[in-house]
Amino acid sequence: MSQEPHSPRLEIEYCTRCRWLPRATWMAQELLTTFEAELGEVALVPSAGGVFEVRVDGEVVWSRKSDAAFTDAADIKRLVRDRVAPDRPLGHSERSTD
Amino acid sequence: MSQEPHSPRLEIEYCTRCRWLPRATWMAQELLTTFEAELGEVALVPSAGGVFEVRVDGEVVWSRKSDAAFTDAADIKRLVRDRVAPDRPLGHSERSTD
Repeated sequence: MSQEPHSPRLEIEYCTRCRWLPRATWMAQELLTTFEAELGEVALVPSAGGVFEVRVDGEVVWSRKSDAAFTDAADIKRLVRDRVAPDRPLGHSERSTD
Repeated sequence: MSQEPHSPRLEIEYCTRCRWLPRATWMAQELLTTFEAELGEVALVPSAGGVFEVRVDGEVVWSRKSDAAFTDAADIKRLVRDRVAPDRPLGHSERSTD
């Protein structure tokens, strides 16, 4: 009956008025597909005020407030990887896009 | 930088080997659409052993182990509603199906 979060805990906080639930659940699915063995949980947190923020164990990995434009799932996967599985290669999503 | 869970916390624990991530994220999206103001968060928890369990603040609402067959989102919405918004009607999904 514990409700303790499972670590590492990744949070996706999203603005409901911006209708970002589909974006948030898509991102959750991408991250849980890639890091199914490394992540303890992905928590979807409804919020407001134009927030879209990804945190790992409380540390901000990506935020629409500071990073301005939305980014690709591959970028966020690299940032999450650096925290939960730093030695793990990410295959084609790691290739430079320039 | 807190990583405290947001209450009420709904957890969906699912078996990754059963490939139930899509089912879990679909259920998360259904519940967050219906209860966007009532739920503090929905946590997706990768697990094993044929588990598919929905909990609200640690209390089991629905479990594949005890409830056997998978059920419709409407059934689980009624069970969640009884815990997080007991006075709230659920419209057409509340109608008897018999």
